[in-house]
Parts: sequence; C-alpha cells; structure tokens
Amino acid sequence: MTDCIFCKIISGSIPAEILYENDKALAVLDINPIHYGHALILPKQHCTDFLSLPEESYQSVLQAAKVVTQALVDSLKLEGFNLFSNNGTIAGQSVFHFHLHITPRYRDDDIRFVLNLQKYSDGDLKRYGTMIRKFINPSAL
Amino acid sequence: MTDCIFCKIISGSIPAEILYENDKALAVLDINPIHYGHALILPKQHCTDFLSLPEESYQSVLQAAKVVTQALVDSLKLEGFNLFSNNGTIAGQSVFHFHLHITPRYRDDDIRFVLNLQKYSDGDLKRYGTMIRKFINPSAL
Repeated sequence: MTDCIFCKIISGSIPAEILYENDKALAVLDINPIHYGHALILPKQHCTDFLSLPEESYQSVLQAAKVVTQALVDSLKLEGFNLFSNNGTIAGQSVFHFHLHITPRYRDDDIRFVLNLQKYSDGDLKRYGTMIRKFINPSAL
Repeated sequence: MTDCIFCKIISGSIPAEILYENDKALAVLDINPIHYGHALILPKQHCTDFLSLPEESYQSVLQAAKVVTQALVDSLKLEGFNLFSNNGTIAGQSVFHFHLHITPRYRDDDIRFVLNLQKYSDGDLKRYGTMIRKFINPSAL
C-alpha cells in the first residue's frame, strides 16, 4: 500500500535496520524499543491486522520470529521475552500493517502489564463458552 | 508431560471450556480472564515456550487463533484484541507449556502496558543490528 510505512520498508523505499528476511516476512528493529533489540516481524503482503493476515504467511511469520528470537537470546542474553500483536487502535495498534513484536525482558525491568484479572461467576464460564462456540466457523475463513 | 496442567487439559483428564480444536492445537477459555472471552491457544504437543514450539505446529496454532479471534469478534463485539505470549518467568509465564493469549479489548477498559519507550542514540541502531545479525542462524533451528 503506497501510504503504509511498513510497505515502504519492505519495498526498500525507506531505510530500516533489517535483521532477517524469508520468502514472506521481514524482521526489523523497532526504532522506539521497549528494550534495545525489540524487533518487529512484518508480513511482506500488506494486511491491516491478524484477521486479514493470509494463512500462506503464517509459517514464514513464525519462522522469522523464531530465528530472530533465538538470535536475540544468544546476542543480548535475554532472560525472557514477550511476543505480542496489538490489533485495533484501542488495543494499541499504531501502524495498520500487521506486525508481531518480540520484546526482550530482563529481571527487574520496568515493564508492567496493568490488568484486573477476573473470575467467572458460577455458570458464566459455560455460558461464555456456549456463546462463543456458536460463532466458531473455520470454513468461513 | 504428566505434571503439566495444559497437557492434562489436552488429554481430557481435567476439564476446560474448549472453544475449538484442530489437528495440532486446542483453544480454551482462560479461567482468570483479563476480559470474559480471553482465550488460550495450546499446541497439543508439549513444549515449554515459543523457541521449543515445533515448526509443524505453527500453521495449526495460528489457524486456531484466527478461528477463535473471529468468533470472539463476532460473539462479543470486540473493539480490538491483543495476541501475546509470555516466555520465561520474568516475562510473566506461569504455565510452562507454550500458549498464545487472545484478549478482548474495549474502549476505556482498564488495561495498560507500563513501558518506557526508548530511542537509540546515534549509531546504536546499526550497532545493535550488526550484533544481532551475527547470531542469525536459521539452519541451526
């Protein structure tokens, strides 16, 4: 897409620090990292989010993620890592070309996820399961 | 693995609210959800984290994630969603069987990621790129 910054990185029209490339995915350093080494896996084919990521890209995206994660572990001596993908503005997505973050983690770093973990009240777990299963439709994808 | 709670869910020896299943992955509701509908994708083959997830499971894990995410969007009217996987205790992993979280997100929910986004100083972006690329070794995986 002509106005997509990640498409421009993939086509080489704007520079990026490229870590790895395979047939359908490109790995680059995030220029605003949570920790130095924070990487992004970009499918080469433009798609706005995970739901529109072509199934033909799944293997390449995760293969690139594995290669880069292993290199991060080996080079930067990670003590852990998070993989994440934000989908939708309210979920924190700022570039609307699907991307998978790989973030190095270290003991006592200052990263926190502020969450209120909930419990299901009696019956609600089954009720939610039933409600969601009604919409499970693999053949529609 | 005999003492792995997710392996027990996969074998059926302890109950779970199952949303979907394909050849190599199982999707269940997280019983301590960030929001109701928070789902987990579990590879059926035991592996502790993303680096040990067999490449033969990649397609099935992401296919299950897509089917379940679409069902969550349709049934619970999500306004966004996060996919994430915590790897290592210090990254928030508590069950050592790889799992991918799918978390519903809504406007004005109380979920926050507390992060200090950094910038690379002059030369550091290239220096980190060079350092990491030295350890890129897809043939070793």
